[in-house]
Amino acid sequence: MATRIAVIGAGAAGATAALQARKFSRDAEITIFNEEKYSQYSRCGLPYTISGKVKDFEDLVLMPPESWASVKIDAKLGTRVTRIEHDAKKLTFEGDESGELQYDALIFATGARNADPPIEGLDKERVYGLRTLDDARVLANEAVAAKRGVVIGGGLVGMETAEAFVERGLEVTVVEFLPNCLLAMVDSDMADIVEEHCRQHGLKILTNTAAQKITGGESPEGVIVKSRQTEEVTEIPADFVVVATGVRPVTDLAESIGVNVGKSRGIVANEKMMTNLENVYAVGDCAESPEFITGTGIVAGLGTVAVRQGRVAGINAAGGDVSFPGTVGAKVTKLFGLEIASTGLTEDTANKWGVPVAKGSIKGSTKPPYFTGGNDLKLKTYYNKETGKLVGGQLVGVEDAAMRLNVLTLGIQQDIDVAELFDFENCYAPAICDTWDPLVQSADAARRRLKM
Amino acid sequence: MATRIAVIGAGAAGATAALQARKFSRDAEITIFNEEKYSQYSRCGLPYTISGKVKDFEDLVLMPPESWASVKIDAKLGTRVTRIEHDAKKLTFEGDESGELQYDALIFATGARNADPPIEGLDKERVYGLRTLDDARVLANEAVAAKRGVVIGGGLVGMETAEAFVERGLEVTVVEFLPNCLLAMVDSDMADIVEEHCRQHGLKILTNTAAQKITGGESPEGVIVKSRQTEEVTEIPADFVVVATGVRPVTDLAESIGVNVGKSRGIVANEKMMTNLENVYAVGDCAESPEFITGTGIVAGLGTVAVRQGRVAGINAAGGDVSFPGTVGAKVTKLFGLEIASTGLTEDTANKWGVPVAKGSIKGSTKPPYFTGGNDLKLKTYYNKETGKLVGGQLVGVEDAAMRLNVLTLGIQQDIDVAELFDFENCYAPAICDTWDPLVQSADAARRRLKM
Repeated sequence: MATRIAVIGAGAAGATAALQARKFSRDAEITIFNEEKYSQYSRCGLPYTISGKVKDFEDLVLMPPESWASVKIDAKLGTRVTRIEHDAKKLTFEGDESGELQYDALIFATGARNADPPIEGLDKERVYGLRTLDDARVLANEAVAAKRGVVIGGGLVGMETAEAFVERGLEVTVVEFLPNCLLAMVDSDMADIVEEHCRQHGLKILTNTAAQKITGGESPEGVIVKSRQTEEVTEIPADFVVVATGVRPVTDLAESIGVNVGKSRGIVANEKMMTNLENVYAVGDCAESPEFITGTGIVAGLGTVAVRQGRVAGINAAGGDVSFPGTVGAKVTKLFGLEIASTGLTEDTANKWGVPVAKGSIKGSTKPPYFTGGNDLKLKTYYNKETGKLVGGQLVGVEDAAMRLNVLTLGIQQDIDVAELFDFENCYAPAICDTWDPLVQSADAARRRLKM
Repeated sequence: MATRIAVIGAGAAGATAALQARKFSRDAEITIFNEEKYSQYSRCGLPYTISGKVKDFEDLVLMPPESWASVKIDAKLGTRVTRIEHDAKKLTFEGDESGELQYDALIFATGARNADPPIEGLDKERVYGLRTLDDARVLANEAVAAKRGVVIGGGLVGMETAEAFVERGLEVTVVEFLPNCLLAMVDSDMADIVEEHCRQHGLKILTNTAAQKITGGESPEGVIVKSRQTEEVTEIPADFVVVATGVRPVTDLAESIGVNVGKSRGIVANEKMMTNLENVYAVGDCAESPEFITGTGIVAGLGTVAVRQGRVAGINAAGGDVSFPGTVGAKVTKLFGLEIASTGLTEDTANKWGVPVAKGSIKGSTKPPYFTGGNDLKLKTYYNKETGKLVGGQLVGVEDAAMRLNVLTLGIQQDIDVAELFDFENCYAPAICDTWDPLVQSADAARRRLKM
């Protein structure tokens, strides 16, 4: 009898799982459920539908609903799984279609939902999150209708959304509770550079500032904020508000059948992406899996990780045996032309997870000094103080930051130490970069410090 | 007694050797000789003095003559070592200074000289090579004086020089004997893309064509060329000619004291950069050292390798003990905005050196399909057919080709196989690249072929 695979959620992780299961097994019976009427689209692309860098909402859809039939996957869109009886290997679904389904393997790809912060007035009209294609459609309208917006939360989604509105000519303020934006990604000194750059491009940023209340009637008139340093309270005028204060894994269905949830609040999955229940998998934004260096259980919240986990779960559910190597956590974005890139541990996570680190920090250039058109590149690499192993890196610059990060990520995956990064034979040409790449220079700086 | 180190040649390799010897040892007595009156300048930057991308010739000078004294290195510029009596550890020099010098360690960094092809008329005025700063000065004048030029040889130097003249508005023809340009760097199919791109930007290229004779009186009037396919003979009008048909290692002095020269015609050096004679080193364009994958002795002819070898020889000569890990051979250039990048083995060198290869070849994009502004990226990765190990890669594209190459080079240095490249966690953001980077896609393509 063919294996029956049920995938709950058709985002990047779920859709990839279903498609890879099909690729691995011609005769598996695969069903995928999605609450949204859409199936796999690029969530990371949503902010760019506001700025117009993604021209059409439909362009983001990577797996159009009608395509599922062609790969013999039963896609039940606009449909919610409401109940699972795992003893009987049976689930119940409701929505555009209703009914029951027997399964042999179950893949949770239920994603995350926006976490609402304790702020008054979140229930007003024109207060938005940005998680779905429908959210993006509404926000794109605000780019035309509104003049002033406030984005609460200076993480990746918040900053990318704010950038989009600034590029559409709006007056935008980001309110960040922590001392800097993007602290889940980079250290404070790097974030300072980013904030300065964004301010120069017209974005207002208030850090160390708590959003307390959205004022106004049905719609916002402003956001009352309080400086955590000076305790000064001010109101920022706003026609609309975007709340981007992070997300929570969606785990209720999984928990209902006894699947374990970890400290990160994600569903605990091993390197096969399997949960504590046999043939039950969890992938993507709902799943907790080991961070590459320390093995700490983390919810990566990254598209790259989602598709890689999805592939592993899909193949394994269909009878294969592949492993997910762990999340290094390579992250990148581009704000007003500035690339911000981070991989592995930051100073903060290294401390939190008990890894003693030394760093190589340099301010280099993307081109040799004699060549016109080079740009500043601020670069840090982190090493385990005891072993000299590369454990993280951060780059900020208007070119070649992200691509350089890739070298560090592969280096971490290959467990290289500072001497090996110093011995890295970067390519060189005057029009491209210098003979000793900034990456090698940073290893050199750290090598002296580590005496390795 | 302090070690006495003599370095012959103050190019990238020699200058780095001297400086690193000083860094390692405060009291070493270091003397560096150079026939040119300049010392270390960026040879690779020379073509860009013609186009103006390097603004001033002096900008290329990385180690101005007056700087040597500040690091207590005796730099004898405009001075030639004419004779070495190695039994007596003594050398004789002539030129701006003349005399004799005792040494304990000797470093050959004598570089290479242009190899003159068998073409009639090379002795005319306005027939040039491009190897020295003085060559570049003269060629920069031709960019003003001349209207039409012919470049004989479509390797890196030939193509970069031709590009520079086209950018200055001249009519330029490259004549290449082989079926394609840049074949020391990329396979024919990649070279085809490059040639097409250069032609679209106004460069004339004749491949599979032998330059036979430079016509004219004191100065050239044209170059007579013969198609190797059709045997058709034509004359290309030219006000000046650049000969860029490759270089030969300068080894005569070394050979005079019994230092071994290898099949590549370079001075054979081991991983300590030491020759067959104790405390005699060879580095840079005059040295043959092991290629990383096969151990074949090669003259790399690369600035990156020169400085790395120079560092190793300098430290070892001063009493240290470091090793050069071998040359992967990462090469890159940019022609009319197109990046051409290559590392490790090409199909050609793999065949020549007996490595059975399988490849992953893809035509990808630098951005996700839904994001505006992505560019084509043609990419190949090569693997040892028996072991699955990554042994080479080539990329051509108008952005992010060179930086992606760096990932492949580190991969080769870390001995990764196709499965490990497939597991590479590239960074991803819509404005930067797609979730499965083209590098990973190429590994995926090869993995299927290799069944790994």
